[in-house]
Amino acid sequence: MEKQTAVRAGRRRLSAQEYVEGILKGDRIALARAITIIESRRADDAELAQEILDACLPHTGRAVRVGITGAPGAGKSTFIEALGKHLTRERKEKVAVLAVDPSSRISRGSILGDKTRMSSLAGDPLAFIRPSPSGGSLGGVARRTRETILLCEAAGFPNVIVETVGVGQSETAVRGMVDFFLLLLLPNAGDELQGLKRGVMELCDLIAINKADTDRHRASIALHECRSALHLFAAQPWGWTPRAVLCSAVTGEGIAEIWEAVLEHRRLLEDRGLLQQLRQEQSRAWLHDMIEEALLNLFREHPLVRQKLPELERQVAEGRLSAFHAAERLLAYYQKDRIP
Amino acid sequence: MEKQTAVRAGRRRLSAQEYVEGILKGDRIALARAITIIESRRADDAELAQEILDACLPHTGRAVRVGITGAPGAGKSTFIEALGKHLTRERKEKVAVLAVDPSSRISRGSILGDKTRMSSLAGDPLAFIRPSPSGGSLGGVARRTRETILLCEAAGFPNVIVETVGVGQSETAVRGMVDFFLLLLLPNAGDELQGLKRGVMELCDLIAINKADTDRHRASIALHECRSALHLFAAQPWGWTPRAVLCSAVTGEGIAEIWEAVLEHRRLLEDRGLLQQLRQEQSRAWLHDMIEEALLNLFREHPLVRQKLPELERQVAEGRLSAFHAAERLLAYYQKDRIP
Repeated sequence: MEKQTAVRAGRRRLSAQEYVEGILKGDRIALARAITIIESRRADDAELAQEILDACLPHTGRAVRVGITGAPGAGKSTFIEALGKHLTRERKEKVAVLAVDPSSRISRGSILGDKTRMSSLAGDPLAFIRPSPSGGSLGGVARRTRETILLCEAAGFPNVIVETVGVGQSETAVRGMVDFFLLLLLPNAGDELQGLKRGVMELCDLIAINKADTDRHRASIALHECRSALHLFAAQPWGWTPRAVLCSAVTGEGIAEIWEAVLEHRRLLEDRGLLQQLRQEQSRAWLHDMIEEALLNLFREHPLVRQKLPELERQVAEGRLSAFHAAERLLAYYQKDRIP
Repeated sequence: MEKQTAVRAGRRRLSAQEYVEGILKGDRIALARAITIIESRRADDAELAQEILDACLPHTGRAVRVGITGAPGAGKSTFIEALGKHLTRERKEKVAVLAVDPSSRISRGSILGDKTRMSSLAGDPLAFIRPSPSGGSLGGVARRTRETILLCEAAGFPNVIVETVGVGQSETAVRGMVDFFLLLLLPNAGDELQGLKRGVMELCDLIAINKADTDRHRASIALHECRSALHLFAAQPWGWTPRAVLCSAVTGEGIAEIWEAVLEHRRLLEDRGLLQQLRQEQSRAWLHDMIEEALLNLFREHPLVRQKLPELERQVAEGRLSAFHAAERLLAYYQKDRIP
């Protein structure tokens, strides 16, 4: 108990300005601690988090932001490790890796798991690996991930990779924060859904068929199918044409080419003057997502709504009450205390 | 002026019970007037609408609900007319056609336009065609369309077709109301985006390549590409495998086969006992969509929020203020009048 308090006091000693100075100097400990403050649910941390974030804001927006998704088993960790090492060892560039993993809120297990999985990258002085333990709702994950991206940019990371699991709604949220979205598939892509949410494919800028070395034949069939599908979705209106490639995180095949594609995409964005516009859209989306999340939370946490919602929802589902009617009643409960 | 009042008085004379009796007897005039009441924004109409809807509710949920989308120019109207005539003339079944067209709020032009476009179906005594003029937000369109589907079901229509334009968010909304979602493409599907929103393809149960008679060669290439893409998305977990077919609304090619696919899908739903579950999910989604829409409206219409939002949004977009900070301020304005 005493030790905990001492640690906390130690952490507390830094002011917002000290955190910001540390972050801007690229101090990884200051960065890691600031992220912890942003992830915190304590009211006094929230104020500190805001101060840090506001001060870092002018130093953000310049990184290459890449989102990576894929079904469980597609080899995301190994792939990110290979891509990360390409950046740190071949290109001598710093890279921050953030993992949005809704499951990591259950225990600290997956945090350690991630560090173990990416062990050779985790030990790299140019790499910073940070799993984002979710604080509950998806919006929560997304919000903190967005802010973590900003802090990493302020800390001078020119490359930020965000990993997301290929299920649920996190893809759409992450897609809205990054510039380039990469879908990792296995050579048996065409054989099964791979647990992917429908629609994920159409969010991506590049499909990488991983583990291509394990089954050349099936990998080339998958490549053909992906290219057909991408051809259907066709070029994005601003000029980027999503592509499909083969790769192997184990042999290193395709990794350099994939990063070349990311950079080509970036150059296209810059050449057409679209990067700033994209950053503005990302910020606006961030604001509206936060507002929406907060409004829904206010509603759900309202005592009368909490009490009445389950029964009304059941009646609507069973066709005994129109949704119109049920929504009206719930909103009346919700608004009751707005009239003094 | 006097005439208008007389018309309104004439309409007003019916009680909720009279509307409901008319609808349940399949009286098209009662149905049409009830839909108008549901679409109305008048406070006294809202109450009447609720009464009608609640009374009709036990008689809903049995129709085959089909959503049809496609890019402008894909021939949606002609296709729906061909499909509708197949139902009324070949199968001697009644069909209701609802069009969700956000543009129709601008003028009554597109309402007349729809009737003109589907002229031979509009004159068919077994067909009921109703464009839904949007009352503003997409949620608004969706809400009224959902309720219109229910009224059509209560009026004894065993088939309800909902047309939506292949852009914007209306697809996702309509997808949540119907059982079967059909995407109409042109033979040059692979050549361009066709103005479709990304992700639409993965929502569909069937892709029909229309106007196949105009260019056999390109149509078969498009068919191959669609099949490759669908193979990637693979079977839906409950057992339906989305398919792609060629058709021509002009020659009638493929129309009967497409309806067979709709019925096959329906039988599969029923055989697996999933139809009731689907209806419950649709109703629950309806409730939550309505609540979300109402909460966002309450927020946006709050005087202080309206006053402050544009400037704060600009500061966020320009990176001068964090979204976190801006959201907090806006929510504080919004909640001010909640504390007496």
